[in-house]
Amino acid sequence: MNHPLSPSKLQFDSDGKLHHFLTIEGIKRQTLTEILDLADSFLGTEGKAVKKLPLLRGKTVVNLFFENSTRTLTTFELAAQRLSADVLKINIATSATAKGESLLDMLHNLEAMQCDMFVIRHAQSGAAQFIAHHVAPHISVINAGDGRHAHPTQAMLDMLTIRRHKPEFGALKVAIVGDVLHSRVARSQIHALTTLGAAEVRVIGPKTLIPPSMQQLGVHIFHDMAKGLDGVDVVIMLRLQRERMAGALLPSEKEYFSLYGLTDEKLAMAKPDAIVMHPGPINRGVEIASSVADGPQSVILEQVSNGIALRMAVMSMVLGRSPQTQAAEDIR
Amino acid sequence: MNHPLSPSKLQFDSDGKLHHFLTIEGIKRQTLTEILDLADSFLGTEGKAVKKLPLLRGKTVVNLFFENSTRTLTTFELAAQRLSADVLKINIATSATAKGESLLDMLHNLEAMQCDMFVIRHAQSGAAQFIAHHVAPHISVINAGDGRHAHPTQAMLDMLTIRRHKPEFGALKVAIVGDVLHSRVARSQIHALTTLGAAEVRVIGPKTLIPPSMQQLGVHIFHDMAKGLDGVDVVIMLRLQRERMAGALLPSEKEYFSLYGLTDEKLAMAKPDAIVMHPGPINRGVEIASSVADGPQSVILEQVSNGIALRMAVMSMVLGRSPQTQAAEDIR
Amino acid sequence: MNHPLSPSKLQFDSDGKLHHFLTIEGIKRQTLTEILDLADSFLGTEGKAVKKLPLLRGKTVVNLFFENSTRTLTTFELAAQRLSADVLKINIATSATAKGESLLDMLHNLEAMQCDMFVIRHAQSGAAQFIAHHVAPHISVINAGDGRHAHPTQAMLDMLTIRRHKPEFGALKVAIVGDVLHSRVARSQIHALTTLGAAEVRVIGPKTLIPPSMQQLGVHIFHDMAKGLDGVDVVIMLRLQRERMAGALLPSEKEYFSLYGLTDEKLAMAKPDAIVMHPGPINRGVEIASSVADGPQSVILEQVSNGIALRMAVMSMVLGRSPQTQAAEDIR
Repeated sequence: MNHPLSPSKLQFDSDGKLHHFLTIEGIKRQTLTEILDLADSFLGTEGKAVKKLPLLRGKTVVNLFFENSTRTLTTFELAAQRLSADVLKINIATSATAKGESLLDMLHNLEAMQCDMFVIRHAQSGAAQFIAHHVAPHISVINAGDGRHAHPTQAMLDMLTIRRHKPEFGALKVAIVGDVLHSRVARSQIHALTTLGAAEVRVIGPKTLIPPSMQQLGVHIFHDMAKGLDGVDVVIMLRLQRERMAGALLPSEKEYFSLYGLTDEKLAMAKPDAIVMHPGPINRGVEIASSVADGPQSVILEQVSNGIALRMAVMSMVLGRSPQTQAAEDIR
Repeated sequence: MNHPLSPSKLQFDSDGKLHHFLTIEGIKRQTLTEILDLADSFLGTEGKAVKKLPLLRGKTVVNLFFENSTRTLTTFELAAQRLSADVLKINIATSATAKGESLLDMLHNLEAMQCDMFVIRHAQSGAAQFIAHHVAPHISVINAGDGRHAHPTQAMLDMLTIRRHKPEFGALKVAIVGDVLHSRVARSQIHALTTLGAAEVRVIGPKTLIPPSMQQLGVHIFHDMAKGLDGVDVVIMLRLQRERMAGALLPSEKEYFSLYGLTDEKLAMAKPDAIVMHPGPINRGVEIASSVADGPQSVILEQVSNGIALRMAVMSMVLGRSPQTQAAEDIR
Repeated sequence: MNHPLSPSKLQFDSDGKLHHFLTIEGIKRQTLTEILDLADSFLGTEGKAVKKLPLLRGKTVVNLFFENSTRTLTTFELAAQRLSADVLKINIATSATAKGESLLDMLHNLEAMQCDMFVIRHAQSGAAQFIAHHVAPHISVINAGDGRHAHPTQAMLDMLTIRRHKPEFGALKVAIVGDVLHSRVARSQIHALTTLGAAEVRVIGPKTLIPPSMQQLGVHIFHDMAKGLDGVDVVIMLRLQRERMAGALLPSEKEYFSLYGLTDEKLAMAKPDAIVMHPGPINRGVEIASSVADGPQSVILEQVSNGIALRMAVMSMVLGRSPQTQAAEDIR
């Protein structure tokens, strides 16, 4: 959370408008609500994303993924295509940066090519804000996940999914379950839920995976699933990074599942109409039972659909292209 | 040919309309003719594919190629672009599926992203129908080649090429030459030719590469080129998979060429106006002599051009978007 | 320079119009000026490339890069997108050509798919002209760099950049500094500058990297930076291929920088308003000091912006689609 540059200030322009989307921290409730409203307007009545809008026609969106992620990359690519943007995917492995060109030289070259938006995924915390700090004023940067720091579009698509099922955040108890220590998703969700006024945010997991400093974020810590899930409206499961198993942080997959895997029995502790969420890809039988992932309370695939609409909303908002401004331009 | 799910039924919706395109088996002659007519309408007077049509505007086509095939992948990509679809190419090697996510979870995610069509290439027979069996009702699946089973768009572009040269199938003798045992192309061609009423379908090749069960498909088996090519109107050469050479199935390349390679001398056995076809990529000097591949009777490159038009026809037909329905919508 | 086929003739059609763009050699001053004028018309008042034009709508551009080059590939991709072309990127590594299909068979297949333009990058000198010699008449070939031979679009974007700062070529002294021996960029720049009537073209570098035959191209050779830069209007630095260091051609990076690296001190030898250029990616501290690369006389990033406009100009010109012809067609 402590970064030399303050991303929460960096992401606003001098008029206080959102220009980059780096972290939920420091964004006001009203702005988060505007993003959710815009995303909602892109979702049709049956929850299908609008297929094609001209909002980013003539804009070029560059996907710069320094870390593999087919799913997130694909949703950003689809969101950009459906806003009619041109999309450029840079293959980092074969780029000049791989051959010793500095990252900033590469970015300045892309700026000179009149690109308009960089979508950044990077294994290092703070990468997106470092880039946002150095790009030309006409470029918007979207953080698509940086190290353990933040994954703000994922958190916001989760908020969109929650709100479509439970419209009043003030009435909600939400539990986040799993490897909170290493999770940029959890960190961003906590900021979003707190800002939107959720009644109670809980984190549940083994002591090795919940840093005590979490409490400063205003969450309640549980190490027992039965107690943590008791009476909650929303259960958010985190993906277990299997490579953690190698270290001393975690018991075996089997033991982990028995303690923290979401089964029908454990889910019964939550409210009967509680919804179950997961950012994907899911590890069936590790952090979640198939019967729950595919069950009636699961909204996991809705999250994916909502992810397109939410990313379309953020992309059009940071470039200052809402359906309203577009309509105004069409009239001129 | 024996698959647990019947692909021939699976590919029709409850109204009997083609919804997936998995195999030629079970498709009526009238429907095959409609596909050929639509493809023909996309080909200009000089046989050039129409460059850009809005039939799939706002639709997203996903190319899921589990097996390398630049040529087929490229023609599907071009066909989708020329129908104005958005095209997504999933890099299977770096996808979450490679990291242990189940194939079905990946597909359900792509469905949730409001994709409309999956074009599948897979080394395993039955892969496309397995996927068609499990996708959501709004998704159409196109089989771009599955194991030894079927390659229906290849077979249909071959039918289109034949028909543009020899309009009456009922009058035609067609020979398919080479490794029929391992060829999904041959299997699909035989079904198409039989359904379209070809007078006679022959297969020619060494005994090790022609399964005796072939006769059940209504073809005549030849092991001698001179006899097999005698009087035919169409010669379809199959690509020799060089990796077969390693096993005991085949003699040396040189011996294979001397027995079954198509030379000018062997071609002289066929009718003087016979056409020569090959699905590509060709192995010059292995299954076909350069003088034949580049000669006046070769229509190999026409097959490539026709492949774009044929794939445009199938894609627009399974999504229920013919030029007629499009025109009707434009009026509304 | 000696090639069996004359690329300078090959690139014109029978009406003398530019049909391929292979080399600057043999193109008349008037045609080069037309290219620059058209590129200029694509650059807005602030030097930003026009974002989207319909000049190549319905055309398919194929990028065939046999050599890695993210930067050049990206600018061609963006230029094609901004002209509304469909763009196809062939992955050479996984293509059938990698599996033994001949290059010409692959090209003839792409032709049959109704592609309209091949953009070729190849490690071998003469590759683009070999391809241009063999393609169908409706295909245009653009050389995006072939071995040590030519890189004509790079040279022309450099001319565009020079002209926007120093409109009269006849008054200009230009110095090209570095590894001229291995540089296709230098070779093309020399032809362009000579044709456009530059007052004096100098090449500066160690004896091992300046072939004596250079003098036949009408340039002055210098081995001393102070003398070579004296009074020039334009300094063009070449990228040092670090792999040359391994051989006997070059001293250490440090010694090279001290002798031929462009520092503020050395730049002071040139005219006070001289501009500094580099094709990128730059090796900071090897051939150029950061203070110069990022300094007030550097136009390195302008070159990148101009590169998009210049490539748009060449692409639309070889396909015979200028804004004027487009307007005429729109009226019909």
